[in-house]
Amino acid sequence: MSEENVVYIGSKPVMNYCLAVLSALQGGGSTVALKARGRAISTAVDVAEVTKNRFMENLNVQMIEIGTEKMESMEGQMRNVSTITIVLKKE
Amino acid sequence: MSEENVVYIGSKPVMNYCLAVLSALQGGGSTVALKARGRAISTAVDVAEVTKNRFMENLNVQMIEIGTEKMESMEGQMRNVSTITIVLKKE
Repeated sequence: MSEENVVYIGSKPVMNYCLAVLSALQGGGSTVALKARGRAISTAVDVAEVTKNRFMENLNVQMIEIGTEKMESMEGQMRNVSTITIVLKKE
Repeated sequence: MSEENVVYIGSKPVMNYCLAVLSALQGGGSTVALKARGRAISTAVDVAEVTKNRFMENLNVQMIEIGTEKMESMEGQMRNVSTITIVLKKE
């Protein structure tokens, strides 16, 4: 997978990320990875499902991975945050 | 997997669900499925990661599945909601 085919999911509307996925797949490459942390994990699942069901019927979930990252909070303390990576593949 | 070994994730604190997972695994059976919808999806990932990293080193993610369900809103309209199922297995 080329480095460009990663879409980082944050707090923008779902449709913004769906468009990013579609344009990543049009720019070449048959896979795109969605990456999210914390509360944005739910949005990443929404983006995968909406893109698949509404925009690209031949898109499948190739792999889903969850994990934990350490992040520094505002107060300088380390805390754990959950992560998800969803790899979508155009068949 | 027996029907009892499903933990439905809602809006309670993460630790409540971790305890539910641990007791499901102590009550027999080596797998437990976490199921969540919408905003609770992020919590389901937290529950899987915290249980694995803090309470049960020999617990692994066996399978992760995402999907879409139709739900009726308060106004009687149908809307789509994303779902996740995370199956954890004690080795």
